[in-house]
Amino acid sequence: MTAPQDEDRYLVGLVGSGIGTSLSPALHEREADELGLRCLYRTLDLAVLGLPAAAVGDLVAAAGLAGYNGLNITHPCKQVVLSHLDDLSPEAAALQAANTVVFSDGKATGHNTDLSGFARNVALGLPGAPLDRVVLLGAGGAGAAAAHALLTMGAGTVHVFDTDHGRGDTLTAALHDRFGPDRAVTGRMDNGHTALSRALRAADGLVHATPTGMAAYPGLPLPADLVLPHLWVADVVYRPLNTELVVTARARGCRVLDGGGMVVFQAADAFRLFTGHEPDTGRMLRHFDALVLTPGEVR
Amino acid sequence: MTAPQDEDRYLVGLVGSGIGTSLSPALHEREADELGLRCLYRTLDLAVLGLPAAAVGDLVAAAGLAGYNGLNITHPCKQVVLSHLDDLSPEAAALQAANTVVFSDGKATGHNTDLSGFARNVALGLPGAPLDRVVLLGAGGAGAAAAHALLTMGAGTVHVFDTDHGRGDTLTAALHDRFGPDRAVTGRMDNGHTALSRALRAADGLVHATPTGMAAYPGLPLPADLVLPHLWVADVVYRPLNTELVVTARARGCRVLDGGGMVVFQAADAFRLFTGHEPDTGRMLRHFDALVLTPGEVR
Repeated sequence: MTAPQDEDRYLVGLVGSGIGTSLSPALHEREADELGLRCLYRTLDLAVLGLPAAAVGDLVAAAGLAGYNGLNITHPCKQVVLSHLDDLSPEAAALQAANTVVFSDGKATGHNTDLSGFARNVALGLPGAPLDRVVLLGAGGAGAAAAHALLTMGAGTVHVFDTDHGRGDTLTAALHDRFGPDRAVTGRMDNGHTALSRALRAADGLVHATPTGMAAYPGLPLPADLVLPHLWVADVVYRPLNTELVVTARARGCRVLDGGGMVVFQAADAFRLFTGHEPDTGRMLRHFDALVLTPGEVR
Repeated sequence: MTAPQDEDRYLVGLVGSGIGTSLSPALHEREADELGLRCLYRTLDLAVLGLPAAAVGDLVAAAGLAGYNGLNITHPCKQVVLSHLDDLSPEAAALQAANTVVFSDGKATGHNTDLSGFARNVALGLPGAPLDRVVLLGAGGAGAAAAHALLTMGAGTVHVFDTDHGRGDTLTAALHDRFGPDRAVTGRMDNGHTALSRALRAADGLVHATPTGMAAYPGLPLPADLVLPHLWVADVVYRPLNTELVVTARARGCRVLDGGGMVVFQAADAFRLFTGHEPDTGRMLRHFDALVLTPGEVR
Protein backbone atom coordinates (compact mmCIF):
# COMPACT_ATOMS: atom_id res chain seq x y z
CA MET A 1 0.00 0.00 0.00
CA THR A 2 1.22 3.43 -0.81
CA ALA A 3 -0.36 6.79 -0.22
CA PRO A 4 0.96 10.29 -0.86
CA GLN A 5 2.76 11.85 2.04
CA ASP A 6 2.10 15.29 3.47
CA GLU A 7 5.77 16.11 2.89
CA ASP A 8 5.11 16.12 -0.84
CA ARG A 9 2.40 18.72 -0.69
CA TYR A 10 2.03 22.28 0.43
CA LEU A 11 -0.95 24.25 1.61
CA VAL A 12 -0.32 27.97 1.69
CA GLY A 13 -2.37 31.13 1.42
CA LEU A 14 -2.57 34.87 1.45
CA VAL A 15 -4.31 36.99 4.09
CA GLY A 16 -5.21 40.56 3.19
CA SER A 17 -8.05 42.73 2.00
CA GLY A 18 -9.12 42.96 -1.63
CA ILE A 19 -6.71 40.26 -2.80
CA GLY A 20 -8.94 38.55 -5.33
CA THR A 21 -6.66 39.41 -8.24
CA SER A 22 -3.41 38.57 -6.46
CA LEU A 23 -0.83 36.87 -8.65
CA SER A 24 0.61 34.92 -5.73
CA PRO A 25 -1.59 31.82 -6.21
CA ALA A 26 -0.52 31.53 -9.84
CA LEU A 27 3.17 32.17 -9.12
CA HIS A 28 3.40 29.66 -6.28
CA GLU A 29 1.24 26.93 -7.80
CA ARG A 30 2.91 27.05 -11.22
CA GLU A 31 6.38 26.83 -9.74
CA ALA A 32 5.31 23.96 -7.49
CA ASP A 33 3.87 22.16 -10.52
CA GLU A 34 7.16 22.60 -12.36
CA LEU A 35 9.00 21.09 -9.38
CA GLY A 36 6.56 18.18 -9.13
CA LEU A 37 5.13 19.33 -5.81
CA ARG A 38 1.41 19.38 -5.06
CA CYS A 39 0.54 22.88 -3.89
CA LEU A 40 -2.65 24.74 -3.22
CA TYR A 41 -2.49 28.48 -2.59
CA ARG A 42 -5.65 29.91 -1.04
CA THR A 43 -6.69 33.56 -0.81
CA LEU A 44 -8.25 34.40 2.56
CA ASP A 45 -9.71 37.79 1.73
CA LEU A 46 -10.83 39.90 4.68
CA ALA A 47 -13.06 41.93 2.36
CA VAL A 48 -14.84 38.78 1.18
CA LEU A 49 -15.04 37.34 4.69
CA GLY A 50 -16.32 40.65 6.10
CA LEU A 51 -13.57 40.71 8.72
CA PRO A 52 -11.41 43.56 10.07
CA ALA A 53 -7.61 43.61 9.89
CA ALA A 54 -7.48 42.54 13.53
CA ALA A 55 -8.96 39.18 12.47
CA VAL A 56 -5.58 38.22 11.01
CA GLY A 57 -4.84 36.63 14.38
CA ASP A 58 -7.84 34.32 14.04
CA LEU A 59 -6.88 33.48 10.48
CA VAL A 60 -3.30 32.68 11.43
CA ALA A 61 -4.50 30.44 14.25
CA ALA A 62 -7.05 28.72 12.00
CA ALA A 63 -4.54 28.15 9.23
CA GLY A 64 -2.00 26.73 11.66
CA LEU A 65 -4.55 24.30 13.10
CA ALA A 66 -5.92 23.38 9.66
CA GLY A 67 -2.61 22.16 8.30
CA TYR A 68 -1.25 25.15 6.40
CA ASN A 69 2.51 25.23 5.83
CA GLY A 70 2.47 29.00 5.82
CA LEU A 71 0.77 32.24 4.86
CA ASN A 72 1.66 35.33 2.99
CA ILE A 73 0.36 38.48 4.66
CA THR A 74 -0.44 41.70 2.88
CA HIS A 75 -2.25 45.01 3.37
CA PRO A 76 -3.62 45.85 5.91
CA CYS A 77 -2.21 43.09 8.13
CA LYS A 78 1.59 43.15 7.87
CA GLN A 79 2.02 44.99 11.17
CA VAL A 80 -1.01 43.77 13.12
CA VAL A 81 -0.02 40.16 12.48
CA LEU A 82 3.14 40.53 14.57
CA SER A 83 1.43 40.17 17.93
CA HIS A 84 0.00 36.81 16.84
CA LEU A 85 3.34 35.19 15.99
CA ASP A 86 5.65 33.13 18.18
CA ASP A 87 8.88 34.30 16.63
CA LEU A 88 10.22 36.81 14.08
CA SER A 89 13.13 36.70 11.67
CA PRO A 90 15.68 39.51 12.13
CA GLU A 91 14.28 41.23 9.03
CA ALA A 92 10.68 41.08 10.22
CA ALA A 93 11.73 42.32 13.65
CA ALA A 94 13.70 45.21 12.15
CA LEU A 95 10.85 46.25 9.87
CA GLN A 96 8.17 45.49 12.46
CA ALA A 97 6.27 43.94 9.56
CA ALA A 98 5.85 40.40 8.25
CA ASN A 99 4.67 39.38 4.80
CA THR A 100 5.32 35.67 5.35
CA VAL A 101 4.40 33.32 8.19
CA VAL A 102 5.78 29.80 8.41
CA PHE A 103 4.15 27.12 10.57
CA SER A 104 6.57 24.57 11.94
CA ASP A 105 6.58 22.41 15.07
CA GLY A 106 3.47 24.17 16.34
CA LYS A 107 5.07 27.61 16.08
CA ALA A 108 4.28 30.52 13.75
CA THR A 109 7.34 32.50 12.65
CA GLY A 110 7.17 35.79 10.79
CA HIS A 111 9.51 36.69 7.95
CA ASN A 112 9.81 39.62 5.60
CA THR A 113 10.61 38.65 2.04
CA ASP A 114 9.69 42.09 0.72
CA LEU A 115 13.09 43.10 2.03
CA SER A 116 15.02 40.20 0.56
CA GLY A 117 12.97 40.38 -2.64
CA PHE A 118 13.75 44.06 -3.17
CA ALA A 119 17.43 43.48 -2.50
CA ARG A 120 17.64 40.64 -4.98
CA ASN A 121 15.74 42.61 -7.60
CA VAL A 122 18.21 45.51 -7.34
CA ALA A 123 21.26 43.22 -7.30
CA LEU A 124 20.15 41.35 -10.42
CA GLY A 125 18.33 44.13 -12.25
CA LEU A 126 20.75 47.01 -11.70
CA PRO A 127 24.12 45.28 -11.49
CA GLY A 128 26.91 47.62 -10.52
CA ALA A 129 24.57 50.52 -9.87
CA PRO A 130 26.13 53.05 -7.44
CA LEU A 131 24.41 53.08 -4.07
CA ASP A 132 26.24 55.89 -2.28
CA ARG A 133 23.20 58.16 -2.13
CA VAL A 134 19.70 56.90 -2.75
CA VAL A 135 16.49 58.90 -2.57
CA LEU A 136 13.43 57.02 -1.33
CA LEU A 137 10.02 58.44 -2.16
CA GLY A 138 7.41 56.86 0.09
CA ALA A 139 8.04 55.63 3.64
CA GLY A 140 5.18 53.10 3.97
CA GLY A 141 5.66 49.36 4.17
CA ALA A 142 7.22 48.92 0.73
CA GLY A 143 9.45 51.95 1.23
CA ALA A 144 10.62 50.67 4.59
CA ALA A 145 11.46 47.28 3.07
CA ALA A 146 13.37 49.00 0.27
CA ALA A 147 15.31 51.27 2.66
CA HIS A 148 16.32 48.40 4.94
CA ALA A 149 17.27 46.34 1.90
CA LEU A 150 19.42 49.12 0.42
CA LEU A 151 21.31 49.73 3.66
CA THR A 152 21.74 45.98 4.16
CA MET A 153 23.24 45.87 0.65
CA GLY A 154 25.77 48.54 1.60
CA ALA A 155 24.10 51.71 0.40
CA GLY A 156 25.75 54.82 1.88
CA THR A 157 22.80 57.03 2.74
CA VAL A 158 19.08 56.81 2.14
CA HIS A 159 17.25 60.11 1.87
CA VAL A 160 13.64 59.50 2.95
CA PHE A 161 10.79 61.61 1.53
CA ASP A 162 7.12 61.19 2.34
CA THR A 163 4.21 63.64 2.20
CA ASP A 164 3.41 62.34 5.69
CA HIS A 165 6.41 63.76 7.52
CA GLY A 166 5.73 61.76 10.64
CA ARG A 167 5.93 58.54 8.68
CA GLY A 168 9.18 59.64 7.08
CA ASP A 169 10.65 60.50 10.48
CA THR A 170 9.59 57.16 11.92
CA LEU A 171 11.32 55.22 9.16
CA THR A 172 14.45 57.34 9.42
CA ALA A 173 14.58 56.74 13.17
CA ALA A 174 14.26 52.99 12.64
CA LEU A 175 17.08 53.10 10.08
CA HIS A 176 19.25 55.07 12.52
CA ASP A 177 18.62 52.46 15.20
CA ARG A 178 19.60 49.60 12.96
CA PHE A 179 22.31 51.04 10.72
CA GLY A 180 23.64 54.13 12.51
CA PRO A 181 22.76 57.83 12.52
CA ASP A 182 24.70 58.71 9.34
CA ARG A 183 22.92 56.25 7.06
CA ALA A 184 19.51 57.92 6.74
CA VAL A 185 18.17 61.46 6.39
CA THR A 186 14.62 62.76 6.31
CA GLY A 187 13.73 65.21 3.59
CA ARG A 188 10.79 67.58 3.72
CA MET A 189 8.26 67.57 0.91
CA ASP A 190 7.21 71.07 -0.16
CA ASN A 191 5.07 72.39 -3.00
CA GLY A 192 8.10 73.50 -4.99
CA HIS A 193 9.90 70.18 -4.42
CA THR A 194 12.96 72.20 -3.40
CA ALA A 195 14.45 69.64 -1.03
CA LEU A 196 13.55 66.64 -3.22
CA SER A 197 15.09 68.32 -6.26
CA ARG A 198 18.28 69.08 -4.38
CA ALA A 199 18.51 65.53 -3.06
CA LEU A 200 17.98 64.00 -6.49
CA ARG A 201 20.65 66.14 -8.09
CA ALA A 202 23.14 64.73 -5.57
CA ALA A 203 21.81 61.15 -5.67
CA ASP A 204 22.78 58.01 -7.56
CA GLY A 205 19.30 56.57 -7.68
CA LEU A 206 15.63 56.98 -6.89
CA VAL A 207 13.39 54.35 -5.35
CA HIS A 208 9.69 55.01 -5.72
CA ALA A 209 7.42 53.40 -3.12
CA THR A 210 4.13 55.33 -3.10
CA PRO A 211 0.89 54.05 -4.69
CA THR A 212 1.05 56.64 -7.50
CA GLY A 213 1.22 54.91 -10.87
CA MET A 214 -0.99 52.01 -9.87
CA ALA A 215 -4.06 51.60 -12.05
CA ALA A 216 -6.22 53.22 -9.36
CA TYR A 217 -3.78 56.12 -8.83
CA PRO A 218 -2.46 57.04 -12.29
CA GLY A 219 0.14 59.71 -12.84
CA LEU A 220 3.70 60.58 -11.92
CA PRO A 221 4.74 60.70 -8.26
CA LEU A 222 7.08 63.64 -8.93
CA PRO A 223 7.54 66.24 -11.68
CA ALA A 224 9.04 64.67 -14.80
CA ASP A 225 11.91 67.13 -14.87
CA LEU A 226 13.14 65.80 -11.53
CA VAL A 227 13.73 62.41 -13.13
CA LEU A 228 17.30 63.29 -14.02
CA PRO A 229 19.07 61.17 -16.65
CA HIS A 230 22.04 60.34 -14.39
CA LEU A 231 19.75 58.52 -11.89
CA TRP A 232 18.85 54.89 -11.83
CA VAL A 233 15.13 54.57 -11.04
CA ALA A 234 13.47 51.63 -9.29
CA ASP A 235 9.69 51.50 -9.03
CA VAL A 236 7.93 49.17 -6.59
CA VAL A 237 4.59 49.56 -8.36
CA TYR A 238 4.05 46.61 -10.70
CA ARG A 239 0.46 46.91 -11.88
CA PRO A 240 0.93 48.12 -14.50
CA LEU A 241 4.54 47.06 -14.95
CA ASN A 242 5.19 50.05 -17.21
CA THR A 243 4.10 52.83 -14.87
CA GLU A 244 4.22 56.44 -15.97
CA LEU A 245 7.39 56.76 -13.89
CA VAL A 246 9.03 53.78 -15.61
CA VAL A 247 8.08 55.09 -19.05
CA THR A 248 9.22 58.63 -18.23
CA ALA A 249 12.51 57.47 -16.73
CA ARG A 250 13.28 55.27 -19.73
CA ALA A 251 12.51 58.14 -22.09
CA ARG A 252 14.87 60.38 -20.16
CA GLY A 253 17.69 57.84 -20.42
CA CYS A 254 17.74 56.52 -16.87
CA ARG A 255 18.60 52.94 -15.98
CA VAL A 256 15.21 51.62 -14.92
CA LEU A 257 14.00 48.73 -12.77
CA ASP A 258 10.29 48.00 -12.74
CA GLY A 259 8.41 46.51 -9.79
CA GLY A 260 7.95 43.04 -11.22
CA GLY A 261 11.21 41.59 -9.98
CA MET A 262 10.48 42.46 -6.35
CA VAL A 263 7.14 40.64 -6.60
CA VAL A 264 8.76 37.56 -8.07
CA PHE A 265 11.71 37.46 -5.69
CA GLN A 266 9.58 37.99 -2.57
CA ALA A 267 7.40 35.13 -3.81
CA ALA A 268 10.44 32.96 -4.53
CA ASP A 269 11.83 33.61 -1.05
CA ALA A 270 8.45 32.78 0.51
CA PHE A 271 8.24 29.63 -1.63
CA ARG A 272 11.61 28.50 -0.29
CA LEU A 273 10.50 29.16 3.29
CA PHE A 274 7.18 27.34 2.80
CA THR A 275 8.45 24.27 0.98
CA GLY A 276 12.16 23.95 1.60
CA HIS A 277 12.55 23.58 -2.16
CA GLU A 278 14.59 25.91 -4.35
CA PRO A 279 12.44 27.69 -6.94
CA ASP A 280 13.70 28.57 -10.42
CA THR A 281 13.48 32.36 -10.30
CA GLY A 282 14.11 32.77 -14.02
CA ARG A 283 11.13 30.58 -14.74
CA MET A 284 9.04 32.50 -12.19
CA LEU A 285 10.01 35.80 -13.85
CA ARG A 286 8.90 34.51 -17.26
CA HIS A 287 5.65 33.27 -15.78
CA PHE A 288 5.08 36.63 -14.08
CA ASP A 289 5.60 38.43 -17.39
CA ALA A 290 3.06 36.17 -19.04
CA LEU A 291 0.58 36.99 -16.29
CA VAL A 292 0.96 40.78 -16.26
CA LEU A 293 2.01 41.91 -19.72
CA THR A 294 -0.77 42.75 -22.15
CA PRO A 295 -0.42 41.42 -25.72
CA GLY A 296 2.42 43.24 -27.48
CA GLU A 297 3.66 44.87 -24.26
CA VAL A 298 7.30 44.33 -23.30
CA ARG A 299 9.28 45.18 -20.22
CA MET B 1 -3.98 39.59 -16.62
CA THR B 2 -5.22 36.18 -15.69
CA ALA B 3 -4.94 34.32 -12.46
CA PRO B 4 -6.39 30.99 -11.39
CA GLN B 5 -9.76 31.19 -9.72
CA ASP B 6 -10.69 29.58 -6.43
CA GLU B 7 -13.54 27.85 -8.23
CA ASP B 8 -11.00 25.66 -10.02
CA ARG B 9 -9.42 24.36 -6.88
CA TYR B 10 -10.46 22.39 -3.86
CA LEU B 11 -9.06 22.22 -0.36
CA VAL B 12 -10.40 19.31 1.62
CA GLY B 13 -9.24 17.16 4.49
CA LEU B 14 -9.88 14.36 6.91
CA VAL B 15 -10.30 14.71 10.67
CA GLY B 16 -9.85 11.63 12.80
CA SER B 17 -7.34 9.82 14.97
CA GLY B 18 -4.56 7.66 13.58
CA ILE B 19 -5.34 8.49 9.96
CA GLY B 20 -1.80 8.72 8.65
CA THR B 21 -2.29 5.81 6.26
CA SER B 22 -5.73 6.87 5.03
CA LEU B 23 -6.29 6.29 1.33
CA SER B 24 -8.63 9.28 1.05
CA PRO B 25 -5.91 11.81 0.08
CA ALA B 26 -4.79 9.59 -2.80
CA LEU B 27 -8.33 8.77 -3.97
CA HIS B 28 -9.51 12.39 -3.99
CA GLU B 29 -6.35 13.97 -5.35
CA ARG B 30 -5.89 11.46 -8.17
CA GLU B 31 -9.50 11.81 -9.33
CA ALA B 32 -9.23 15.61 -9.19
CA ASP B 33 -6.05 15.42 -11.26
CA GLU B 34 -7.83 13.29 -13.84
CA LEU B 35 -10.62 15.86 -14.03
CA GLY B 36 -8.16 18.76 -14.35
CA LEU B 37 -9.01 20.19 -10.93
CA ARG B 38 -6.40 21.38 -8.46
CA CYS B 39 -7.04 19.61 -5.19
CA LEU B 40 -5.19 19.25 -1.96
CA TYR B 41 -6.43 16.75 0.62
CA ARG B 42 -4.99 17.26 4.09
CA THR B 43 -5.01 14.83 7.00
CA LEU B 44 -5.73 16.57 10.32
CA ASP B 45 -4.81 13.77 12.69
CA LEU B 46 -5.92 14.19 16.31
CA ALA B 47 -3.27 11.69 17.39
CA VAL B 48 -0.52 13.75 15.74
CA LEU B 49 -1.95 17.03 17.01
CA GLY B 50 -2.34 15.64 20.52
CA LEU B 51 -6.01 16.61 20.62
CA PRO B 52 -9.09 14.80 21.98
CA ALA B 53 -12.11 13.87 19.85
CA ALA B 54 -13.95 16.91 21.25
CA ALA B 55 -11.46 19.12 19.37
CA VAL B 56 -13.24 18.25 16.12
CA GLY B 57 -15.32 21.39 16.70
CA ASP B 58 -12.20 23.57 16.73
CA LEU B 59 -10.89 21.83 13.61
CA VAL B 60 -14.18 22.28 11.75
CA ALA B 61 -14.24 25.97 12.67
CA ALA B 62 -10.59 26.43 11.68
CA ALA B 63 -11.03 24.66 8.36
CA GLY B 64 -14.11 26.70 7.55
CA LEU B 65 -12.30 29.96 8.27
CA ALA B 66 -9.14 28.85 6.46
CA GLY B 67 -10.86 28.26 3.14
CA TYR B 68 -11.58 24.52 3.13
CA ASN B 69 -14.37 23.35 0.83
CA GLY B 70 -15.10 20.48 3.15
CA LEU B 71 -13.88 17.77 5.47
CA ASN B 72 -14.26 14.07 5.81
CA ILE B 73 -14.76 12.96 9.40
CA THR B 74 -13.81 9.57 10.76
CA HIS B 75 -13.28 7.70 14.03
CA PRO B 76 -13.71 8.90 16.76
CA CYS B 77 -15.47 12.07 15.61
CA LYS B 78 -18.45 11.09 13.44
CA GLN B 79 -20.95 11.60 16.26
CA VAL B 80 -19.27 14.36 18.28
CA VAL B 81 -18.98 16.53 15.17
CA LEU B 82 -22.77 16.86 14.91
CA SER B 83 -23.11 19.54 17.57
CA HIS B 84 -20.64 21.74 15.65
CA LEU B 85 -22.58 21.77 12.38
CA ASP B 86 -25.21 24.21 11.15
CA ASP B 87 -27.26 21.69 9.23
CA LEU B 88 -27.52 17.96 8.55
CA SER B 89 -28.58 15.96 5.52
CA PRO B 90 -31.49 13.57 6.12
CA GLU B 91 -29.05 10.65 6.11
CA ALA B 92 -26.71 12.23 8.65
CA ALA B 93 -29.67 13.16 10.83
CA ALA B 94 -31.08 9.64 10.66
CA LEU B 95 -27.75 8.02 11.50
CA GLN B 96 -26.79 10.74 13.99
CA ALA B 97 -23.36 10.55 12.39
CA ALA B 98 -21.57 12.54 9.70
CA ASN B 99 -18.54 11.46 7.72
CA THR B 100 -18.58 14.49 5.41
CA VAL B 101 -18.87 18.22 6.12
CA VAL B 102 -19.38 20.76 3.35
CA PHE B 103 -18.63 24.47 3.85
CA SER B 104 -20.81 26.76 1.79
CA ASP B 105 -22.05 30.31 2.30
CA GLY B 106 -20.56 30.39 5.78
CA LYS B 107 -22.44 27.26 6.87
CA ALA B 108 -21.17 23.79 7.72
CA THR B 109 -23.49 20.98 6.64
CA GLY B 110 -23.03 17.35 7.65
CA HIS B 111 -23.63 14.44 5.29
CA ASN B 112 -23.22 10.70 5.54
CA THR B 113 -21.75 9.11 2.46
CA ASP B 114 -21.01 5.86 4.28
CA LEU B 115 -24.71 5.18 3.85
CA SER B 116 -24.88 6.12 0.17
CA GLY B 117 -21.52 4.44 -0.48
CA PHE B 118 -22.65 1.15 1.03
CA ALA B 119 -25.90 1.25 -0.93
CA ARG B 120 -24.13 1.87 -4.20
CA ASN B 121 -21.60 -0.87 -3.50
CA VAL B 122 -24.36 -3.42 -2.93
CA ALA B 123 -26.38 -2.25 -5.94
CA LEU B 124 -23.40 -2.48 -8.29
CA GLY B 125 -21.51 -5.37 -6.70
CA LEU B 126 -24.39 -7.72 -5.92
CA PRO B 127 -26.88 -6.96 -8.68
CA GLY B 128 -30.18 -8.74 -8.22
CA ALA B 129 -29.24 -10.09 -4.81
CA PRO B 130 -32.34 -10.85 -2.71
CA LEU B 131 -32.76 -8.47 0.21
CA ASP B 132 -35.80 -9.89 1.98
CA ARG B 133 -33.88 -10.95 5.07
CA VAL B 134 -30.43 -9.64 5.85
CA VAL B 135 -28.33 -10.39 8.91
CA LEU B 136 -26.10 -7.58 10.13
CA LEU B 137 -23.18 -8.49 12.36
CA GLY B 138 -21.93 -5.37 14.14
CA ALA B 139 -24.08 -2.38 15.11
CA GLY B 140 -21.41 0.34 15.32
CA GLY B 141 -21.10 3.23 12.90
CA ALA B 142 -20.43 1.17 9.79
CA GLY B 143 -23.16 -1.31 10.71
CA ALA B 144 -25.67 1.49 11.26
CA ALA B 145 -24.81 2.97 7.86
CA ALA B 146 -25.22 -0.44 6.24
CA ALA B 147 -28.56 -1.13 7.95
CA HIS B 148 -30.01 2.28 7.00
CA ALA B 149 -28.72 1.79 3.47
CA LEU B 150 -30.27 -1.67 3.13
CA LEU B 151 -33.69 -0.55 4.36
CA THR B 152 -33.51 2.54 2.13
CA MET B 153 -32.83 0.18 -0.78
CA GLY B 154 -35.95 -1.79 0.03
CA ALA B 155 -34.63 -4.64 2.14
CA GLY B 156 -37.42 -6.42 3.99
CA THR B 157 -35.95 -7.02 7.44
CA VAL B 158 -32.53 -6.46 8.97
CA HIS B 159 -31.59 -8.78 11.81
CA VAL B 160 -29.10 -6.93 14.03
CA PHE B 161 -26.46 -8.81 16.02
CA ASP B 162 -23.81 -7.26 18.22
CA THR B 163 -21.89 -8.63 21.19
CA ASP B 164 -22.83 -5.33 22.87
CA HIS B 165 -26.56 -5.95 23.17
CA GLY B 166 -27.27 -2.35 24.13
CA ARG B 167 -25.70 -1.13 20.94
CA GLY B 168 -27.71 -3.59 18.91
CA ASP B 169 -30.93 -2.50 20.63
CA THR B 170 -30.14 1.18 20.00
CA LEU B 171 -29.66 0.61 16.30
CA THR B 172 -32.79 -1.49 16.03
CA ALA B 173 -34.80 1.22 17.78
CA ALA B 174 -33.46 3.85 15.37
CA LEU B 175 -34.39 1.62 12.42
CA HIS B 176 -37.89 1.15 13.87
CA ASP B 177 -38.28 4.93 14.18
CA ARG B 178 -37.28 5.55 10.60
CA PHE B 179 -38.56 2.52 8.73
CA GLY B 180 -41.29 0.98 10.90
CA PRO B 181 -41.36 -1.67 13.63
CA ASP B 182 -41.43 -4.68 11.27
CA ARG B 183 -38.21 -3.81 9.42
CA ALA B 184 -35.60 -4.59 12.09
CA VAL B 185 -35.07 -7.25 14.75
CA THR B 186 -32.40 -7.59 17.42
CA GLY B 187 -30.73 -10.94 17.81
CA ARG B 188 -28.90 -12.08 20.92
CA MET B 189 -25.33 -13.27 20.63
CA ASP B 190 -24.63 -16.38 22.68
CA ASN B 191 -21.65 -18.69 22.98
CA GLY B 192 -23.29 -21.38 20.86
CA HIS B 193 -24.36 -18.87 18.21
CA THR B 194 -27.85 -20.41 18.38
CA ALA B 195 -29.77 -17.28 17.40
CA LEU B 196 -27.24 -16.16 14.81
CA SER B 197 -27.21 -19.61 13.21
CA ARG B 198 -31.01 -19.70 13.05
CA ALA B 199 -31.13 -16.19 11.53
CA LEU B 200 -28.52 -17.01 8.91
CA ARG B 201 -30.30 -20.18 7.82
CA ALA B 202 -33.36 -18.04 7.10
CA ALA B 203 -31.48 -15.11 5.60
CA ASP B 204 -30.58 -14.05 2.06
CA GLY B 205 -27.39 -12.30 2.98
CA LEU B 206 -24.90 -11.38 5.69
CA VAL B 207 -23.33 -7.98 6.21
CA HIS B 208 -20.26 -7.96 8.40
CA ALA B 209 -19.46 -4.68 10.16
CA THR B 210 -17.20 -5.48 13.12
CA PRO B 211 -13.45 -4.81 13.19
CA THR B 212 -12.60 -8.53 13.02
CA GLY B 213 -10.57 -9.28 9.92
CA MET B 214 -8.68 -6.01 9.95
CA ALA B 215 -4.92 -6.40 10.09
CA ALA B 216 -4.96 -5.58 13.81
CA TYR B 217 -7.85 -7.97 14.55
CA PRO B 218 -7.25 -11.05 12.39
CA GLY B 219 -9.63 -13.95 12.27
CA LEU B 220 -13.21 -14.80 11.40
CA PRO B 221 -16.07 -12.88 13.05
CA LEU B 222 -18.23 -16.02 13.17
CA PRO B 223 -17.69 -19.78 12.89
CA ALA B 224 -16.90 -20.79 9.31
CA ASP B 225 -19.74 -23.31 9.22
CA LEU B 226 -22.25 -20.48 9.70
CA VAL B 227 -21.16 -18.98 6.38
CA LEU B 228 -23.78 -20.93 4.46
CA PRO B 229 -23.35 -21.27 0.70
CA HIS B 230 -26.80 -19.83 -0.09
CA LEU B 231 -25.89 -16.47 1.48
CA TRP B 232 -24.42 -13.46 -0.19
CA VAL B 233 -21.74 -11.97 2.09
CA ALA B 234 -20.72 -8.30 2.22
CA ASP B 235 -17.75 -7.29 4.35
CA VAL B 236 -17.14 -3.64 5.30
CA VAL B 237 -13.54 -4.35 6.32
CA TYR B 238 -11.22 -3.39 3.45
CA ARG B 239 -7.74 -3.60 4.90
CA PRO B 240 -6.96 -6.23 3.85
CA LEU B 241 -9.43 -6.46 0.99
CA ASN B 242 -9.36 -10.24 1.13
CA THR B 243 -10.31 -10.73 4.76
CA GLU B 244 -10.59 -14.19 6.26
CA LEU B 245 -14.37 -13.82 5.95
CA VAL B 246 -14.14 -12.92 2.25
CA VAL B 247 -11.80 -15.83 1.56
CA THR B 248 -13.92 -18.27 3.56
CA ALA B 249 -17.18 -17.14 1.95
CA ARG B 250 -15.70 -17.44 -1.54
CA ALA B 251 -14.40 -20.92 -0.75
CA ARG B 252 -17.85 -21.94 0.46
CA GLY B 253 -19.47 -20.74 -2.78
CA CYS B 254 -21.15 -17.56 -1.52
CA ARG B 255 -21.57 -14.45 -3.66
CA VAL B 256 -19.09 -12.08 -2.01
CA LEU B 257 -18.67 -8.33 -1.84
CA ASP B 258 -15.50 -6.99 -0.27
CA GLY B 259 -15.24 -3.66 1.56
CA GLY B 260 -13.37 -1.79 -1.15
CA GLY B 261 -16.39 -0.59 -3.05
CA MET B 262 -17.93 1.12 -0.03
CA VAL B 263 -14.70 3.03 0.53
CA VAL B 264 -14.57 4.14 -3.08
CA PHE B 265 -18.24 5.07 -3.35
CA GLN B 266 -18.30 7.02 -0.07
CA ALA B 267 -15.25 8.89 -1.36
CA ALA B 268 -16.88 9.49 -4.73
CA ASP B 269 -20.03 10.83 -3.07
CA ALA B 270 -17.94 13.11 -0.85
CA PHE B 271 -15.95 14.26 -3.90
CA ARG B 272 -19.18 15.24 -5.62
CA LEU B 273 -20.34 17.15 -2.55
CA PHE B 274 -16.99 18.93 -2.15
CA THR B 275 -16.40 19.89 -5.77
CA GLY B 276 -19.73 19.74 -7.60
CA HIS B 277 -17.93 17.65 -10.21
CA GLU B 278 -18.90 14.11 -11.17
CA PRO B 279 -16.12 11.62 -10.45
CA ASP B 280 -15.46 8.56 -12.60
CA THR B 281 -16.13 5.78 -10.10
CA GLY B 282 -14.74 3.08 -12.36
CA ARG B 283 -11.46 4.92 -12.48
CA MET B 284 -11.53 5.42 -8.72
CA LEU B 285 -12.12 1.69 -8.18
CA ARG B 286 -9.12 0.82 -10.36
CA HIS B 287 -7.01 3.35 -8.48
CA PHE B 288 -8.15 1.94 -5.16
CA ASP B 289 -7.18 -1.58 -6.26
CA ALA B 290 -3.73 -0.32 -7.23
CA LEU B 291 -3.36 1.24 -3.78
CA VAL B 292 -4.50 -1.71 -1.67
CA LEU B 293 -3.72 -4.91 -3.54
CA THR B 294 -0.34 -6.45 -2.93
CA PRO B 295 1.60 -7.68 -5.98
CA GLY B 296 -0.15 -10.72 -7.43
CA GLU B 297 -3.25 -10.26 -5.25
CA VAL B 298 -6.61 -10.02 -7.00
CA ARG B 299 -10.08 -9.20 -5.77
